[in-house]
Amino acid sequence: MIAIDWGSSSLRAYRLGDDGAILDQRRADVGVLSCDGRFADVLARHLDGWDDARIMMCGMVGGRGGWMEVPYVECPAGEHEIAAAIAPLENGPTIFAERDLRIVPGMIDRGSSPIADVMRGEETQIIGLLDSLVEGVHTICLPGTHSKWVQVRDHAVSSVRTAMTGEAYALFRTHSVLARLMAMEDPPFDAAAFDDGLQRSGDAGGLLHHLFGIRTAGLLGRLSDTQSPSYLSGLLIGHEIRAQAPRPQCVHLIGNDRLLTVYAHALAAFGIEVRRHSEDLAAIGLHRLARVMA
Amino acid sequence: MIAIDWGSSSLRAYRLGDDGAILDQRRADVGVLSCDGRFADVLARHLDGWDDARIMMCGMVGGRGGWMEVPYVECPAGEHEIAAAIAPLENGPTIFAERDLRIVPGMIDRGSSPIADVMRGEETQIIGLLDSLVEGVHTICLPGTHSKWVQVRDHAVSSVRTAMTGEAYALFRTHSVLARLMAMEDPPFDAAAFDDGLQRSGDAGGLLHHLFGIRTAGLLGRLSDTQSPSYLSGLLIGHEIRAQAPRPQCVHLIGNDRLLTVYAHALAAFGIEVRRHSEDLAAIGLHRLARVMA
Repeated sequence: MIAIDWGSSSLRAYRLGDDGAILDQRRADVGVLSCDGRFADVLARHLDGWDDARIMMCGMVGGRGGWMEVPYVECPAGEHEIAAAIAPLENGPTIFAERDLRIVPGMIDRGSSPIADVMRGEETQIIGLLDSLVEGVHTICLPGTHSKWVQVRDHAVSSVRTAMTGEAYALFRTHSVLARLMAMEDPPFDAAAFDDGLQRSGDAGGLLHHLFGIRTAGLLGRLSDTQSPSYLSGLLIGHEIRAQAPRPQCVHLIGNDRLLTVYAHALAAFGIEVRRHSEDLAAIGLHRLARVMA
Repeated sequence: MIAIDWGSSSLRAYRLGDDGAILDQRRADVGVLSCDGRFADVLARHLDGWDDARIMMCGMVGGRGGWMEVPYVECPAGEHEIAAAIAPLENGPTIFAERDLRIVPGMIDRGSSPIADVMRGEETQIIGLLDSLVEGVHTICLPGTHSKWVQVRDHAVSSVRTAMTGEAYALFRTHSVLARLMAMEDPPFDAAAFDDGLQRSGDAGGLLHHLFGIRTAGLLGRLSDTQSPSYLSGLLIGHEIRAQAPRPQCVHLIGNDRLLTVYAHALAAFGIEVRRHSEDLAAIGLHRLARVMA
């Protein structure tokens, strides 16, 4: 089968053996938002030479503005509930007429707050992880533009909480008054400045106040233009982690190497145990869902 | 005398009588950042016809990137310490050769946190208010792009704390994923949506999580594109006010009518008493400093 993790900013395609082993994989920066509605053409191009009949997709491809909107599954739910809600692509394009295209739903958590929270794509990565988790409660963090913090209880996703950490970083890094105090090109990660930002996030005054401190520290020469991006990152991630209550003892991180290194560093600074997992869990999750569905 | 409040984004000029009464005033959107270093020309144009010898200026005109950088005065300080640090414009332009141009320093608070906090211009508005305050502790809030929260103790400024509330609003309103869910033109203030945002700011999860809720609520149809800007404003101002510890019983607000109406509404929702003051306090403060200096 073919497994596709198609998000807002990229497409990851995996060709899987019957046992779920990854035989081949491709990656392209053709996110759902950038392909202008021509989903079939884009997909056909990226699957060139892969002619397996079953194609399973997850991510924003099933969201509003994606190929076909697939309704969210409500928390708590495990792999059986999600598999049951997988949708075949209706009125599929003739280019895929001989094949079986299906889209995995996202998940919605209506319980945790007056305003619901949602995810699309991350639920499939988590399903790829479930087999390796024992019964009980686990905390999973998928850092990114919109970081997801997910609780799993007895192999079912019980809650979802999103923090706009990555997007806030980009906004303040690029468009705010702080941008002028920062090197144009991203300097290497500065662990000491990052740790200072992490520590600052625990002080009184709140995030909106702490952010202004970057300006003052820059003006007073206490943060250089190559230190301040790492300080900003530490400050925001520090606020993100401190807002998780109760604080978890162990966090499973799923994501790319660069982000995971930064988050693992931050979590270790809070005394939290870390287990790292690759984004390729999406392929494992899609294979698992295909078997549950069968 | 002539009193000038020259900030990052606007210039306010006042012609004052000997008793400090405002005889005339002008306002222009020629902030320090937008006049490309041609300070003398810009000022001469806006003072056309006003030929008083003494010209007192406050605000970013005395900051880095301004006409002349005047060192900060350290907290705690009152009007005497600030008046003593007022700087005559060195090497003044010939166009002002016959006149006495002076720039009021900003203030720096090194005590409240590992990173100092600063203000420029607001100290002069506060000096304009001091005469009407009794001995003791008072809290003053000057909302804006960078909101200032200032403590006055026995007629001296004892602390400064800045929150990037207005700038964060503009960033998320304009450049974030939330912008797509908001009406392009600013809709009228929606008090119910603002109050929902204020209330949400008290929930668990932190600001970075609460911000994402605007996206979810928009997708689920719980916040319309004309409600969400007011909700965002309430959320950010709620976080700003909740971060003030200990929470003040009474706050003096200094600013323009539009902002003061919003902040007064928010403070009242927290049970905090409000006293409103106009930005023209800068003229009163400059007149006061001229007298103390004399």
